[in-house]
Amino acid sequence: MSAAAGAAAEVGVDAVVIAPSPDLAYLCGYDPMPFERPTLLVIRPERDPAMLVPLLEVPLAAASPAGQVVEVVGWADGEDPYARATGLLGDARRVALGDRTWAVHLLGLQAASPDVPFSSASPIVGALRAVKDTDELDALRRAGAAADRVAADIVTRPFAGRRELDVAGDLAALLVEHGHTAADFTIVAAGPNAASPHHEPGERVIAGGDVVVMDFGGPLDGYFSDTSRTVVVGEPTDEQRRVHDAVRRAQAAGRAAVRPGIEIQEVDRAARAVLTDAGLGDRFIHRTGHGIGMEVHEPPYVVEGDVTVLRPGMTFSVEPGAYLDGAFGVRIEDIVAVTADGVQPLNDSPRDLLVVA
Amino acid sequence: MSAAAGAAAEVGVDAVVIAPSPDLAYLCGYDPMPFERPTLLVIRPERDPAMLVPLLEVPLAAASPAGQVVEVVGWADGEDPYARATGLLGDARRVALGDRTWAVHLLGLQAASPDVPFSSASPIVGALRAVKDTDELDALRRAGAAADRVAADIVTRPFAGRRELDVAGDLAALLVEHGHTAADFTIVAAGPNAASPHHEPGERVIAGGDVVVMDFGGPLDGYFSDTSRTVVVGEPTDEQRRVHDAVRRAQAAGRAAVRPGIEIQEVDRAARAVLTDAGLGDRFIHRTGHGIGMEVHEPPYVVEGDVTVLRPGMTFSVEPGAYLDGAFGVRIEDIVAVTADGVQPLNDSPRDLLVVA
Repeated sequence: MSAAAGAAAEVGVDAVVIAPSPDLAYLCGYDPMPFERPTLLVIRPERDPAMLVPLLEVPLAAASPAGQVVEVVGWADGEDPYARATGLLGDARRVALGDRTWAVHLLGLQAASPDVPFSSASPIVGALRAVKDTDELDALRRAGAAADRVAADIVTRPFAGRRELDVAGDLAALLVEHGHTAADFTIVAAGPNAASPHHEPGERVIAGGDVVVMDFGGPLDGYFSDTSRTVVVGEPTDEQRRVHDAVRRAQAAGRAAVRPGIEIQEVDRAARAVLTDAGLGDRFIHRTGHGIGMEVHEPPYVVEGDVTVLRPGMTFSVEPGAYLDGAFGVRIEDIVAVTADGVQPLNDSPRDLLVVA
Repeated sequence: MSAAAGAAAEVGVDAVVIAPSPDLAYLCGYDPMPFERPTLLVIRPERDPAMLVPLLEVPLAAASPAGQVVEVVGWADGEDPYARATGLLGDARRVALGDRTWAVHLLGLQAASPDVPFSSASPIVGALRAVKDTDELDALRRAGAAADRVAADIVTRPFAGRRELDVAGDLAALLVEHGHTAADFTIVAAGPNAASPHHEPGERVIAGGDVVVMDFGGPLDGYFSDTSRTVVVGEPTDEQRRVHDAVRRAQAAGRAAVRPGIEIQEVDRAARAVLTDAGLGDRFIHRTGHGIGMEVHEPPYVVEGDVTVLRPGMTFSVEPGAYLDGAFGVRIEDIVAVTADGVQPLNDSPRDLLVVA
């Protein structure tokens, strides 16, 4: 929290307000469910932090790690919690708020402090969280290695004749078997469905000739894995080979571009250039990647316009794709970590167009 | 959505904006995860609804039930989605926003439309959702009956010598066994821990003489159960009997007060009066209850100051408690439905101070 207070002071923010979210867990080790009763951690430079908590959750908050480092202030049902928060904000003139705070709480704070401009706390807390320490990198490495074992196992299973949902079920079971706390997402998109990047696995029975995009991950020791591989059932067509090869080269170019000191948008440009050269630029319909850590998507983003300068310890996905409506799609995704002089991949399962049964 | 548009017009709101949340699922049957890329349904009186969706999720949204009833508008990574949303808002002068929308999206909308006052959509969408139709009431009844079977089963199991976590595990398994999709929460608070209303079950080994508060529920066919019962390991003390009896009478008084036409705060007053008369008013440290449906907590709230007038089809919890720091606590909770002329309980497991082994 002292780092957050310092970062706030640097950007001229007088107070940082954080509601239940990964931001709160990161800053003070308290991780309740977000609810209609606001819980609000208030961090101010040169003051002790305080956390406004529903009265009935004061014992819970006080017994958590937060109880050792913040003053826990209870508010009772029937009181106006936003007026109480204004008291904690004191004379703060500029306030930054955690991105995931519910809008109803921001509206309440704005009504109670009509002259205070609120802004996103992402430049303060998101920037801190973006640079992982040794323990966090170890956790992400373990999550990545476990996801690689899932990728290795799944391609030995039969695909043809089974539903997308069946393969997704296998992925979920393998994620947990290889050490994940939960299977957070298991996209399996076969045939034309693979042209929908966030397809939800369904009843489609996978058939010979189908390209199948798999995108899966979950938390392990509190940090997420997220990897994608694309396979084909039986021998691929020339077109399938050509598109997969272009995506594979784009993904390699994106990873190769990663090094400290460059803007993260350069990674997007490196991957995109390969697909554009291959005539597939307009089929790559999303950004190249996203930061990852306690959340599966977190700042910074690998997208044109994000000028975050890469620093050692930053971790993000590199996941270009190409999507041919009505036909098929391809995506290849790894998590990478920025090192002192370059990049370390946290996933390393084969990136070729593997033929499955 | 036409009901929401009509309700908006009645309160002078020109547009309702809804992000991924139970509100969105309720209004148009689309239920993606909330993410940093905004998905925003825009409802305007006398116009067709439109939904701004990240470009890569356009196929997903179009294939959902929402695709049949709203125009799906894609925005691409790198574009400013809030500027695009402003285009959909057109000349709207007053905009209401779903409570669970992430603050970062509200900040983006406010920056793009600096002259538009935003307010909570709860008086519009929350009010619609508060009155359940026949299918919703049936689902809540099934969830309540399943929770009652869990309550009946758990008291036949041993408590003494087992950890709170072990009993919580039994509750989770029983919730699923009796038809719930998931065990959403399983509070087990023994001995002094029972004085913490939202205690998280832990390593404490339950002992003879412990009062144990259990508060558990989860979704069944998309609608939540939520019930609490308090038991004692072996013969209770006179003090334990006295406090439990007062809470039991307060809970009965709260339920008995429910009828159409009264303000919901009257239910809180009826329950609170009994505990105040018993000298326990200052030990009842939370509101009497909360609305329930697609969310475990939703409007209206059974609290002093909530003047929502009860109407047939409203469903909420009645759950007074008394918490004696360092000693023990008691809570008894049922879900009730407002009927044409009174109240129907959706839970009906025994409310006495049951003695467990």
